Amino acid sequence: MTRTYHARIYITLRPSVLDPAGTAVQSGLQHLGYDNVEQVRIGKYVELMLRADDEATAQSQLDRICDQLLANPVIENYRFELTEVEAVV
Amino acid sequence: MTRTYHARIYITLRPSVLDPAGTAVQSGLQHLGYDNVEQVRIGKYVELMLRADDEATAQSQLDRICDQLLANPVIENYRFELTEVEAVV
Repeated sequence: MTRTYHARIYITLRPSVLDPAGTAVQSGLQHLGYDNVEQVRIGKYVELMLRADDEATAQSQLDRICDQLLANPVIENYRFELTEVEAVV
Repeated sequence: MTRTYHARIYITLRPSVLDPAGTAVQSGLQHLGYDNVEQVRIGKYVELMLRADDEATAQSQLDRICDQLLANPVIENYRFELTEVEAVV
Protein backbone atom coordinates (compact mmCIF):
# COMPACT_ATOMS: atom_id res chain seq x y z
CA MET A 1 0.00 0.00 0.00
CA THR A 2 1.28 3.43 -0.86
CA ARG A 3 1.52 5.84 2.05
CA THR A 4 1.59 9.61 1.95
CA TYR A 5 4.15 11.58 3.93
CA HIS A 6 4.37 15.26 4.75
CA ALA A 7 7.98 16.41 4.67
CA ARG A 8 9.41 19.51 6.30
CA ILE A 9 12.88 20.26 5.03
CA TYR A 10 15.24 22.77 6.64
CA ILE A 11 18.16 23.97 4.54
CA THR A 12 20.84 26.06 6.21
CA LEU A 13 24.17 27.45 5.14
CA ARG A 14 27.12 25.55 6.57
CA PRO A 15 28.53 27.41 9.59
CA SER A 16 31.76 28.23 7.74
CA VAL A 17 29.90 29.94 4.87
CA LEU A 18 29.31 33.69 5.05
CA ASP A 19 25.65 34.74 5.01
CA PRO A 20 25.35 38.25 3.52
CA ALA A 21 21.53 38.17 3.67
CA GLY A 22 21.66 37.31 7.36
CA THR A 23 24.15 40.10 7.97
CA ALA A 24 21.87 42.55 6.13
CA VAL A 25 18.87 41.51 8.21
CA GLN A 26 20.87 41.86 11.42
CA SER A 27 22.01 45.32 10.36
CA GLY A 28 18.41 46.24 9.52
CA LEU A 29 17.26 45.05 12.92
CA GLN A 30 19.91 47.15 14.63
CA HIS A 31 18.75 50.20 12.71
CA LEU A 32 15.23 49.47 13.99
CA GLY A 33 16.59 49.43 17.54
CA TYR A 34 16.92 45.68 18.08
CA ASP A 35 20.54 45.67 19.22
CA ASN A 36 20.00 42.53 21.29
CA VAL A 37 19.83 40.29 18.20
CA GLU A 38 22.88 38.46 16.90
CA GLN A 39 23.99 35.64 14.63
CA VAL A 40 21.16 35.96 12.13
CA ARG A 41 21.33 33.16 9.55
CA ILE A 42 18.82 32.77 6.74
CA GLY A 43 17.94 29.43 5.24
CA LYS A 44 15.16 27.79 3.29
CA TYR A 45 12.16 25.86 4.52
CA VAL A 46 10.45 23.50 2.09
CA GLU A 47 7.23 21.59 2.62
CA LEU A 48 6.05 18.86 0.28
CA MET A 49 3.90 15.75 0.10
CA LEU A 50 5.50 12.50 -1.00
CA ARG A 51 3.99 9.11 -1.77
CA ALA A 52 6.09 6.05 -0.91
CA ASP A 53 5.69 2.45 0.18
CA ASP A 54 7.26 3.02 3.60
CA GLU A 55 9.15 5.56 5.63
CA ALA A 56 12.60 4.21 4.79
CA THR A 57 11.89 4.60 1.08
CA ALA A 58 10.57 8.11 1.63
CA GLN A 59 13.68 9.04 3.61
CA SER A 60 16.15 7.76 1.04
CA GLN A 61 14.24 9.47 -1.76
CA LEU A 62 14.16 12.76 0.15
CA ASP A 63 17.92 12.50 0.71
CA ARG A 64 18.41 12.25 -3.03
CA ILE A 65 15.96 15.09 -3.71
CA CYS A 66 17.79 17.36 -1.29
CA ASP A 67 21.21 16.50 -2.70
CA GLN A 68 20.14 16.82 -6.34
CA LEU A 69 17.81 19.79 -6.33
CA LEU A 70 16.90 21.50 -3.08
CA ALA A 71 20.24 22.02 -1.36
CA ASN A 72 23.73 22.76 -2.56
CA PRO A 73 25.77 20.23 -0.56
CA VAL A 74 28.95 22.27 -1.01
CA ILE A 75 27.67 25.18 1.05
CA GLU A 76 24.44 23.96 2.67
CA ASN A 77 23.29 21.42 5.21
CA TYR A 78 19.80 20.01 5.32
CA ARG A 79 17.64 18.02 7.66
CA PHE A 80 14.03 16.93 7.36
CA GLU A 81 11.09 15.58 9.32
CA LEU A 82 8.61 13.11 7.87
CA THR A 83 5.05 12.70 9.13
CA GLU A 84 2.72 10.10 7.73
CA VAL A 85 -0.66 11.57 6.85
CA GLU A 86 -3.95 9.77 6.55
CA ALA A 87 -4.90 8.96 2.99
CA VAL A 88 -7.77 11.06 1.73
CA VAL A 89 -10.63 8.65 1.00
CA MET B 1 19.58 38.82 34.61
CA THR B 2 19.63 38.84 30.86
CA ARG B 3 19.01 35.49 29.23
CA THR B 4 19.99 34.37 25.77
CA TYR B 5 17.52 32.61 23.50
CA HIS B 6 18.01 30.73 20.27
CA ALA B 7 15.12 31.40 17.90
CA ARG B 8 14.07 29.28 14.95
CA ILE B 9 11.62 31.11 12.74
CA TYR B 10 9.60 29.46 9.98
CA ILE B 11 8.06 31.75 7.39
CA THR B 12 5.61 30.26 4.91
CA LEU B 13 3.38 31.67 2.22
CA ARG B 14 -0.27 31.76 3.20
CA PRO B 15 -2.13 28.80 1.67
CA SER B 16 -4.15 31.07 -0.62
CA VAL B 17 -1.01 32.64 -2.14
CA LEU B 18 0.46 31.10 -5.30
CA ASP B 19 4.04 29.82 -4.96
CA PRO B 20 5.76 29.96 -8.37
CA ALA B 21 9.11 28.85 -6.90
CA GLY B 22 7.46 25.80 -5.36
CA THR B 23 5.76 25.00 -8.65
CA ALA B 24 9.10 25.29 -10.46
CA VAL B 25 10.77 22.93 -7.99
CA GLN B 26 7.93 20.43 -8.32
CA SER B 27 8.22 20.58 -12.10
CA GLY B 28 11.99 20.10 -11.83
CA LEU B 29 11.48 17.08 -9.59
CA GLN B 30 9.06 15.56 -12.07
CA HIS B 31 11.60 16.00 -14.86
CA LEU B 32 14.08 14.13 -12.65
CA GLY B 33 11.58 11.29 -12.33
CA TYR B 34 10.08 12.10 -8.92
CA ASP B 35 6.44 12.03 -9.96
CA ASN B 36 5.34 11.02 -6.44
CA VAL B 37 6.01 14.52 -5.04
CA GLU B 38 3.26 17.10 -4.75
CA GLN B 39 2.34 20.37 -3.08
CA VAL B 40 5.85 21.79 -2.90
CA ARG B 41 5.87 25.09 -1.00
CA ILE B 42 9.01 27.08 -0.37
CA GLY B 43 9.45 29.30 2.65
CA LYS B 44 12.20 30.86 4.71
CA TYR B 45 13.92 29.57 7.80
CA VAL B 46 15.70 32.08 10.02
CA GLU B 47 17.89 31.37 13.03
CA LEU B 48 19.07 34.07 15.42
CA MET B 49 20.23 34.67 18.97
CA LEU B 50 18.32 37.16 21.09
CA ARG B 51 19.04 38.54 24.55
CA ALA B 52 16.03 39.32 26.75
CA ASP B 53 15.04 39.38 30.40
CA ASP B 54 12.57 36.53 30.08
CA GLU B 55 10.83 34.34 27.53
CA ALA B 56 7.68 36.46 27.36
CA THR B 57 9.75 39.52 26.45
CA ALA B 58 11.67 37.53 23.86
CA GLN B 59 8.42 36.26 22.33
CA SER B 60 6.77 39.67 22.04
CA GLN B 61 9.94 41.13 20.56
CA LEU B 62 10.21 38.31 18.02
CA ASP B 63 6.58 38.89 17.04
CA ARG B 64 7.41 42.50 16.26
CA ILE B 65 10.61 41.55 14.42
CA CYS B 66 8.70 39.08 12.23
CA ASP B 67 5.92 41.56 11.48
CA GLN B 68 8.27 44.47 10.76
CA LEU B 69 11.14 42.88 8.91
CA LEU B 70 11.25 39.13 8.41
CA ALA B 71 7.79 38.29 7.12
CA ASN B 72 5.28 40.08 4.93
CA PRO B 73 2.07 39.63 6.94
CA VAL B 74 -0.09 40.22 3.87
CA ILE B 75 1.08 37.07 2.13
CA GLU B 76 3.09 35.13 4.74
CA ASN B 77 2.54 33.34 8.01
CA TYR B 78 5.26 32.76 10.55
CA ARG B 79 5.84 30.70 13.66
CA PHE B 80 8.87 30.38 15.85
CA GLU B 81 10.44 28.26 18.57
CA LEU B 82 12.53 29.71 21.39
CA THR B 83 15.16 27.77 23.30
CA GLU B 84 17.05 29.28 26.18
CA VAL B 85 20.78 28.69 25.84
CA GLU B 86 23.38 28.68 28.54
CA ALA B 87 25.29 31.91 28.78
CA VAL B 88 28.88 31.57 27.64
CA VAL B 89 31.06 32.32 30.65
